Amino acid sequence: MIKRLDVRDYIRTIPDFPHEGIMFRDVTTLFGDPRGFRMAIDLLLHPYAGLRIDKVAALEARGFILGGAVAHQLSVGFAPIRKKGKLPWKTIAQEYQLEYGEAIVEVHEDAILPGEQVLVVDDLLATGGTAEAGIKLIERLGGEVVGCCFVIDLPDLGGRSRLEALGVDVHALCAFEGG
Amino acid sequence: MIKRLDVRDYIRTIPDFPHEGIMFRDVTTLFGDPRGFRMAIDLLLHPYAGLRIDKVAALEARGFILGGAVAHQLSVGFAPIRKKGKLPWKTIAQEYQLEYGEAIVEVHEDAILPGEQVLVVDDLLATGGTAEAGIKLIERLGGEVVGCCFVIDLPDLGGRSRLEALGVDVHALCAFEGG
Repeated sequence: MIKRLDVRDYIRTIPDFPHEGIMFRDVTTLFGDPRGFRMAIDLLLHPYAGLRIDKVAALEARGFILGGAVAHQLSVGFAPIRKKGKLPWKTIAQEYQLEYGEAIVEVHEDAILPGEQVLVVDDLLATGGTAEAGIKLIERLGGEVVGCCFVIDLPDLGGRSRLEALGVDVHALCAFEGG
Repeated sequence: MIKRLDVRDYIRTIPDFPHEGIMFRDVTTLFGDPRGFRMAIDLLLHPYAGLRIDKVAALEARGFILGGAVAHQLSVGFAPIRKKGKLPWKTIAQEYQLEYGEAIVEVHEDAILPGEQVLVVDDLLATGGTAEAGIKLIERLGGEVVGCCFVIDLPDLGGRSRLEALGVDVHALCAFEGG
């Protein structure tokens, strides 16, 4: 008999990383398992079957692992959203708030074409700040966000309602309460 | 008629990035095109058809985009090789030389299981220093490297012969002379 596991069962929890009091949800154990990784990619795409998707955009760096697989599965192009200074060509930038201070993400000006329907992919939805900045970049380039999908939602941090307030569909494979 | 392009035709060259005298080969234009991205993933895998591959390992961050897609295509697990301090669990580390100074890459101790046949994926083969460090990490965990595949080889920088000297198969989709 082949044992059936849920996506959640493949995720490792590491207490006190990167600092005390944080329960870090480690997706490398999910990605490292052949059934876990395939299940995650398939389940990320279920809500979007039959919808037009022209491009996948993903957030550096763990989002790239998922986003590459999702773009390949859909046979569409991939647009990287990166931290400031990493992209080599002409970019547009978007600031967002961190717990302490600010951060900036960038996208190439030609990464999204006007009118493209874009699926945003990342591993974790926490406060939603990075995803919101990514959505704004896509929309500034004339793209339309079909949805934002994540492996993990941390509902206590409010990311889902923040993104839904932008009119964006949010999809997560599992949730961990308590941040 | 659908125009046929070579992988190389999708790659953008940016002069003087990140500093003067460097011709930066930008794969985001390849990844952003649906035909370019799919062709790249398929061609990366051609030499390995029929061989046993248990896991794909990829190097942060652009390698993650390719590695996620390749692992998904093969229905195998994915192991991230990351810069120091990025992985949350127990790691082993490998130093390597840069033009000026040293760098360190790490992998989780359980990312590769003893006896696993591993395909290493990255976007660019330059001096081969990072790939060599990645190969050493995989071998220290008891994995066997089936091959190292890249979108771009810069043959003037000697990476291919450096990796082949380790007994590793090297595969690249295209080459740019002159570094």
